[in-house]
Amino acid sequence: MDFAYSDKVEGLRERVSAFMAAHVLPANTQWHRQVEAGRYPLDLIERLKAKAYSEGLWNLFLPALKDDEPGTRLTNLEYAPLAEIMGRIPWAAEVFNCNAPDTGNMEILHMFATPAQRAQWLAPLLEGRIRSCVGITEPDTASSDPTNLQTTILRDGSDYVINGRKWFTTGAKHPNNRFVIVMGLSDPRPEADPHARHSMVIVPFDAPGVRLVRDVPIMHHHAPEGHCEVLFRDVRVPAENLLGQEGQGFALAQARLGPGRVHHCMRTIGQCELALELLMERALERRTFGRHLADYANIQDWIAKSRIEIDQLRLHVLRAAWLMDKAGNQAARIEVSAIKVAAARVQTQVVDRAIQVFGAMGLTPDTPLSYLWTWGRAMRFIDGPDEVHLRTIARDELKKAKARRGSTAAYLVTPSAHQA
Amino acid sequence: MDFAYSDKVEGLRERVSAFMAAHVLPANTQWHRQVEAGRYPLDLIERLKAKAYSEGLWNLFLPALKDDEPGTRLTNLEYAPLAEIMGRIPWAAEVFNCNAPDTGNMEILHMFATPAQRAQWLAPLLEGRIRSCVGITEPDTASSDPTNLQTTILRDGSDYVINGRKWFTTGAKHPNNRFVIVMGLSDPRPEADPHARHSMVIVPFDAPGVRLVRDVPIMHHHAPEGHCEVLFRDVRVPAENLLGQEGQGFALAQARLGPGRVHHCMRTIGQCELALELLMERALERRTFGRHLADYANIQDWIAKSRIEIDQLRLHVLRAAWLMDKAGNQAARIEVSAIKVAAARVQTQVVDRAIQVFGAMGLTPDTPLSYLWTWGRAMRFIDGPDEVHLRTIARDELKKAKARRGSTAAYLVTPSAHQA
Amino acid sequence: MDFAYSDKVEGLRERVSAFMAAHVLPANTQWHRQVEAGRYPLDLIERLKAKAYSEGLWNLFLPALKDDEPGTRLTNLEYAPLAEIMGRIPWAAEVFNCNAPDTGNMEILHMFATPAQRAQWLAPLLEGRIRSCVGITEPDTASSDPTNLQTTILRDGSDYVINGRKWFTTGAKHPNNRFVIVMGLSDPRPEADPHARHSMVIVPFDAPGVRLVRDVPIMHHHAPEGHCEVLFRDVRVPAENLLGQEGQGFALAQARLGPGRVHHCMRTIGQCELALELLMERALERRTFGRHLADYANIQDWIAKSRIEIDQLRLHVLRAAWLMDKAGNQAARIEVSAIKVAAARVQTQVVDRAIQVFGAMGLTPDTPLSYLWTWGRAMRFIDGPDEVHLRTIARDELKKAKARRGSTAAYLVTPSAHQA
Amino acid sequence: MDFAYSDKVEGLRERVSAFMAAHVLPANTQWHRQVEAGRYPLDLIERLKAKAYSEGLWNLFLPALKDDEPGTRLTNLEYAPLAEIMGRIPWAAEVFNCNAPDTGNMEILHMFATPAQRAQWLAPLLEGRIRSCVGITEPDTASSDPTNLQTTILRDGSDYVINGRKWFTTGAKHPNNRFVIVMGLSDPRPEADPHARHSMVIVPFDAPGVRLVRDVPIMHHHAPEGHCEVLFRDVRVPAENLLGQEGQGFALAQARLGPGRVHHCMRTIGQCELALELLMERALERRTFGRHLADYANIQDWIAKSRIEIDQLRLHVLRAAWLMDKAGNQAARIEVSAIKVAAARVQTQVVDRAIQVFGAMGLTPDTPLSYLWTWGRAMRFIDGPDEVHLRTIARDELKKAKARRGSTAAYLVTPSAHQA
Repeated sequence: MDFAYSDKVEGLRERVSAFMAAHVLPANTQWHRQVEAGRYPLDLIERLKAKAYSEGLWNLFLPALKDDEPGTRLTNLEYAPLAEIMGRIPWAAEVFNCNAPDTGNMEILHMFATPAQRAQWLAPLLEGRIRSCVGITEPDTASSDPTNLQTTILRDGSDYVINGRKWFTTGAKHPNNRFVIVMGLSDPRPEADPHARHSMVIVPFDAPGVRLVRDVPIMHHHAPEGHCEVLFRDVRVPAENLLGQEGQGFALAQARLGPGRVHHCMRTIGQCELALELLMERALERRTFGRHLADYANIQDWIAKSRIEIDQLRLHVLRAAWLMDKAGNQAARIEVSAIKVAAARVQTQVVDRAIQVFGAMGLTPDTPLSYLWTWGRAMRFIDGPDEVHLRTIARDELKKAKARRGSTAAYLVTPSAHQA
Repeated sequence: MDFAYSDKVEGLRERVSAFMAAHVLPANTQWHRQVEAGRYPLDLIERLKAKAYSEGLWNLFLPALKDDEPGTRLTNLEYAPLAEIMGRIPWAAEVFNCNAPDTGNMEILHMFATPAQRAQWLAPLLEGRIRSCVGITEPDTASSDPTNLQTTILRDGSDYVINGRKWFTTGAKHPNNRFVIVMGLSDPRPEADPHARHSMVIVPFDAPGVRLVRDVPIMHHHAPEGHCEVLFRDVRVPAENLLGQEGQGFALAQARLGPGRVHHCMRTIGQCELALELLMERALERRTFGRHLADYANIQDWIAKSRIEIDQLRLHVLRAAWLMDKAGNQAARIEVSAIKVAAARVQTQVVDRAIQVFGAMGLTPDTPLSYLWTWGRAMRFIDGPDEVHLRTIARDELKKAKARRGSTAAYLVTPSAHQA
Repeated sequence: MDFAYSDKVEGLRERVSAFMAAHVLPANTQWHRQVEAGRYPLDLIERLKAKAYSEGLWNLFLPALKDDEPGTRLTNLEYAPLAEIMGRIPWAAEVFNCNAPDTGNMEILHMFATPAQRAQWLAPLLEGRIRSCVGITEPDTASSDPTNLQTTILRDGSDYVINGRKWFTTGAKHPNNRFVIVMGLSDPRPEADPHARHSMVIVPFDAPGVRLVRDVPIMHHHAPEGHCEVLFRDVRVPAENLLGQEGQGFALAQARLGPGRVHHCMRTIGQCELALELLMERALERRTFGRHLADYANIQDWIAKSRIEIDQLRLHVLRAAWLMDKAGNQAARIEVSAIKVAAARVQTQVVDRAIQVFGAMGLTPDTPLSYLWTWGRAMRFIDGPDEVHLRTIARDELKKAKARRGSTAAYLVTPSAHQA
Repeated sequence: MDFAYSDKVEGLRERVSAFMAAHVLPANTQWHRQVEAGRYPLDLIERLKAKAYSEGLWNLFLPALKDDEPGTRLTNLEYAPLAEIMGRIPWAAEVFNCNAPDTGNMEILHMFATPAQRAQWLAPLLEGRIRSCVGITEPDTASSDPTNLQTTILRDGSDYVINGRKWFTTGAKHPNNRFVIVMGLSDPRPEADPHARHSMVIVPFDAPGVRLVRDVPIMHHHAPEGHCEVLFRDVRVPAENLLGQEGQGFALAQARLGPGRVHHCMRTIGQCELALELLMERALERRTFGRHLADYANIQDWIAKSRIEIDQLRLHVLRAAWLMDKAGNQAARIEVSAIKVAAARVQTQVVDRAIQVFGAMGLTPDTPLSYLWTWGRAMRFIDGPDEVHLRTIARDELKKAKARRGSTAAYLVTPSAHQA
C-alpha cells in the first residue's frame, strides 16, 4: 500500500499543469468571449490541440493505445490525476483529445470495431481530426432503466433502419462532429431476453433522416458543443455499421461507461479544488461586520469539511482506477458506481459553499461557480441517476451478506433473564 | 388559536385560483415563446393586468392602501395565501400588480414619500402604468453588511449627485421601468454613525449618467425584466428626490424588506407545492425495473418529507404575516429572518427531489423545475444571505438567554459523589 | 387564522409553569437521588400529585372527561402547550396524571370500556390511584407492521387465554401498576382479514402466568418505571376483560395512538426548548481560544437553526391538535404521522447541538442532555418507526395526486422546436 | 500508488481474524455476563492475553518497539487494518495489549521517559502486567482549549505537588491500574507563554490524596474499566516523576495523540463494518407489509451510502497512517484531525441506520448497536471536539491559500460589458 504518485505521474502532472498554466488558462477569457458571441471557439482549440499533440500530451486516457496510434499510453491510475488537472477548466480536456463523449467512443471502438470501422471512424478520432457523439438517453422513456429504450435499429436487407428520438447527445453541435453511436432496440419481441434486445450502430451525422432538433440547455446553460435532441427518422446505414454483435448493446454500454465515469469523477475533483480555492481567496478578501469572512467559524467549518470530502473522494476514485487496471472494468463496476454517486455529491456541497461565500457574484457568469453548480446538478443523472447506482451497490452488498448468513449471531448477547 | 383561513380568505383564494386557471396558466406557453424570442411579453401581461384590475384582484399586497388608491386592502395574513397561488407561475404576480420590486417600492413610498413624490411616482405604480426598480447591492462591496455600500449620494447645491455601481437591480430592463430607488452614502465621514451615513433617492431611469451596463443572468438564466448591472456616473437629481431624511437609508431599507420577504416566502411555497405535484405526477407515470417510481420507498420518503417541510414552512410564514399585522414589521423582524432562511432551504430540497424524479428532463426548460432550481439557489442571497439572518436570530436568542441567566441551573444534577 | 393562545390557555400555562417552578423543579435532585439509589420515588410523586389534584391541574389531557370524573376538561389544542411545559422534566407528567401510557389507556377505556370495566379500571386510573401499561410490541416480530403480531388471545370457554412475549411495556415496573392492556391474535386463521384478526384484552398484572422478565434499558438507561419485557404463559382472564369487540384490535390501537402522539410531540418540544436554553447558557459561560462559545458563528448558526426548527415544529403540532379537535382523530391521522416523524428529528438535532456545546459534560448524567439524547433515538421508533409514518404520508399524498392526474400538464412547456 | 495490503499485512489480518474468531468472539457473552454482574472480567482477559502473547500478537501498535521489548514491531500502516479487526469487539484490544489509554502512555514513555521511568512504568505496561490512565480533561474548564487546564503541578523542594480535578480518566477503575499521567499547570504566571505553562507527571494511583470520586457513565453506559472523575488533593510525587521537561506538557500531549487517534479511527471502521453487517442480516430476515426490509429502496440507499462512506473513511485513515510512517506524526497532524472528525461522523450515520433497521431491539443491550451509538456520540469529543479539529484544518488550508494569493484570478471572466 502506497499513497504517493509515482515519479512518472508526478512528472506528467507537472507537464500538464504547466501546459494548462501556459496555454489553456490564458485563453480562458477568449474562449468565453467567442462562446458568448455564439460560435464554437474552434481556431483557439485547434491551435492548442496542435501544441498538446506536439508535446505528447495526447490521448492520455486510453490504456489500450497501440503502437501506431498517436498518444501516450497510461494506466487509468496514471491518467486520473491528469484528468483532475484538466477538470479545472471545463473545455480543457478537448485540447488533449481527452474529452467526453469521444473518449468513450474511442474506447468502445478500440474494443469492438471491425478493421474497416477502425480505419473510418477510430483513426480520425484518435488524431483529433473529427469528433463524435453518442445517443442513448431518450426523452420519452425512463432511460435510467435502459431496457426501456425504444429507438429501433431494425435490419432491412443489407441495411439497418433507425427510428427514434435521443437527447442529451453531447457534442452533436460541435463543428467537427461526424458520427453518432446510437443504441436501440434491434429485437422488438417482448419475450426476448431484455438485456439482449438492444444493439449499437454507427450513424454518420449527415445521413438522411438525422435531424438535430434542438440544443437542450442544462439548467439554462447552453454548452457550445451542445447537449442535443436528435431525431432519427428512417435513417438507413449499411449493416457493416453495426458495432459488435446484434443484441450486444448492453455489454457495449457497460464496457463504455466504466473508464468514462472515472474520468468524469477525476475532472470533478479538479472542479472541487478550484471551487475551494475560489472560496478561500474570496473569504480572505471580503469583510463583513468588522471581520474577514475567513475568520468566521461557520466558514472555517465549510473549508475543513470540503477538504475532508475532497480528499476522501480522490482516494476513492484513485482506488477505482487502480482496481480497473488490476482487475478489469467489470470487476471495478461496483466501485465505479460508488464514486459516481460520491463525486456529484461532494461537488455540489463544495460548490454550494463557494457560491455562498461569493454572494451574488456566485450567481453570475463572472466566476466558474454558476456553471459548476448547474453542471453538478446534472451530474447526478449523467451516466445513470444516483438511485440506480445506489441500488447496484446495495444489491452487491446484500449478495455478500446472504453468502455469510448467520455470521453476526455471535455479536448478539442473549439477555441473562432468558437463560433460566 | 385557529388554523383555518377565514371565509373572506377562502373566497379570495378561490377567485385568484380561478383567475390563474382561466387566464394565466393558459397563457404560459405563449409567455415562454415570446421570452424565448427575445422580447418582454408586454401585450400579454397588459391584457391580463386589465382583466385583474377590472376584477378587483389588484394591489392585494398593500395593507395600507388608501381610499383613493386602486386595489383591495388586505392584511398580510390575508394576502399571504394569495401570494402562494401566484407563486406557482413565476410571472403571475405582475398581473395582479403584486410583483417585486415594485411592491417594496410602493410600500416605502407609501410610508415616506412627500405628496409630490406620491403624485409623480407612487400613483402610476399603483395604477400599474409604470414599473420601477431598486439599487442596493453593489458588485464591489460585501453588501451583506450594508454599512459597506459605497455608492455616493452627495448634496451639491439643490441637487444630489450619484456615483456608483449597482447590480441585481431587478426590473431595470422592463419596458415600463421609469425609476430606480438608489441607496448610497450621503455622509462619507468615516467617524459618522455607520447606520446613519446612507440615504435613499429616487432616480429617473432616463437621467443622464444612468447606464444599464448589462443584464446579469442568475445561473445562466436571463429574467425577461432583467437583474441588471447599472452604472451611475455623476447622475444629478433634484434634492426633492430624497426619500425620507438624509441618513435614514437603513431605516427605509428595513421598513422595505419585511413584507417583501414574506411575499417571497409565500410565493416560494407555491413553487414547492407545484414541484411536489410535478414530482408525484411523474412518479406515477414512469416505470423502472418493473415498478412505478411512486412505489419505491426512497421516493415515498421524499414525498413525505416534502409534505412535512412545506406544511411547517407555510405555518411559519403565515405566523410571521400575522405577527406583522398584530405587532408591526419591526416586531416581526426576527420571524421574518427565520422564514427567509427556511423558505429557500425547503424550496431547494423539494425542487431537488422533483428534479431527481424527472431525470434528464428536469434539467431542461421543458419543465419549470430548472428555473426553480437556479432561482432557489439565488434565494439564499436575495434580501441578505442566510448567514446574516441566522446571525440576527442567534443574537436575539442570546440576548434573551442573557436576560434569564442562571435559569437552567435547577435542571442540572450535582452528582451525589460530590455531596460529602 | 390566529396564532395566539387564548386567554384561558395563557392562564393555564402560567399556572402549570408556576407549579413546575414551585414544586417539581425543586424536587428534581431528590428524584434523581432516589432513582440512583434504586427505588421509585413514590412518596415524592404522590405528594406532588396530591398538590396538583387539589389545584385542579389534573387529567388535563382528556377532552372527553365526564362531569363525575376528576380533572379539567381541555381540548387537545388547549392541553398541548401545557404538555410542552411538563415535558421539560421527564417525570413531571405523572404529577398531573398526564403520563404515558396511562393517558392512552384512559382514552381507550373512555371510548370502549363497558360500565364494569370503567368502574374497575378506569375510575382508579382517573383518580391516579393505580397505574397501568400496554403490551403491543414484540421482540420476535417486526412489530412496525402490526399485522405481524403473534401473541395469541384465544377464547376458551368463558375465558381468554393469552400466550406471548411483549417488550417495551412502559410502566410495568411502577409500584402502582395494576394491569396491562394486551394486543394479540384472536383469530389465527391465515385467510382472515389481516386487520381484523387482533383483539385487546385487559390483563391484571398479578394474573398467574404473567412474568416480568426484565427491565430493558433504552440505550443503557433504565427508566425507574421500566420499559419491560413481559412474558404471558397461559394467562387466563374472563371474557369480560375483552376491550371492545373481538377483532377490533387495530381500530382500538389507532384510536389510542392519535392523542398520545400529540402529547409526546408537545413534551418533546419542551425538551427542545430546555436543550436550547442549556446550550445558550453554556455558550455564554465557556471561553476557548479567547472568545466565548456564543461568539462563534458556527454555534450561532446552531442556535438560529434550532429556533427555526422548534418554532415550526410547535406550529405543526398545534395544528394537529387543532385538527383533532375540529375533525376528529381519524381525520388528523396523516398530520399525526407527520409530527411524530418531525418531532423526533428536531429533538435529535437540537439536543445534539447542545451536547456538542457542553462537551464531555454533555455525556454525563449531570445534565438532562444524555437522557434526552438516548430518548431522542428511541423516539424514532416509539409508536411506529419513522419509515412507516413516512410511507403513510406518502401514500396519502399519492392518492390525492392520482385523483388530480393531468393537472400539472399546463405547467410544462413544449419546446418550440417540436411545433412544426 | 498501490491500494493493496502487503502480503505481510494480509497474513497478519488472517491471524488476528482467526484469533478473534477462535478466542475472543466465543468469550463475548461471558464477558458481558461478568460485566453485568458488576465485575471486571479479569480472568477471562488474562487468559486471552497470555494466548495472544504466546502467538506473538502483542503490542502490534508500537512502531518503535525495541529488541528487548515484547511484541511485533509494525508500522502504523501495517497496524491499522489489525486495529480495524480488533474494533469489532469493544474489549478486544486489551487482549493484544493494544488498548487505549495504555497505548498512548507506552508511546509517550517510549519517547520521553528516563531509564528509571522506563524500568518502573513502561516495562510492566509493555508486558501487560499493569495498566495505566491519563488525566487531561477537567470538569471545570473548557478543556477543548487545553491552555485552560487548571490542575496545578507545582515544584516544592524535591517533589511536585498536584491539586485539581480530572474526569473521563479512562481505565482508572481497572483492577490493574497502577498510575496516571497527569497534565497540569506548572507555571501559573499569567504572563508566561500559554503553550509552555503545563507539564506532565507520573502519579502512582495509590499516592495519598488521589481519590477516585466516581465512575462517570457515558450516556448512561458504565465502561467496566471506568471513565472516572479523579480528585488530586495535595498529591506529592518525587520530582523524578516529571515526564520530559517542565513546561513541555503541550508537546507531549501532541506527540501522544497522533497515533492514538489513528487507532481509534481504525477501530471505529471495524465498528462500522459490524454495524453494516448487522443491518443487512436483519434486513434480510424481517418482513413488513409483504416484503423483506432488504427489498425497500430506502434501506438499500442506506446500505449503499454506508458502503461508500466506510470505504472512503478507511482509505483516508490508511493514508494518515502511511503519512505518519513516511513523514512523522507532526507532518500528519492535519490529516489526523481530518480522520478524527470523519470517523465519528461515519460511525454515527452507519450505526444510526443499523438501529433503525433493528427497530426496538436496536435500543437494547442485546445487540452491540446501543453501545456503539452512545460511544459514537462520545467520539465527537474524545481527543478534542470536532469544531477544534475543523478549525485546525481550516487554518491550515487558509495558510496555504494566503501563500498563493491571486492564483484564482485567471479563472474569473471579466464581463465583456466592462471592457469598453
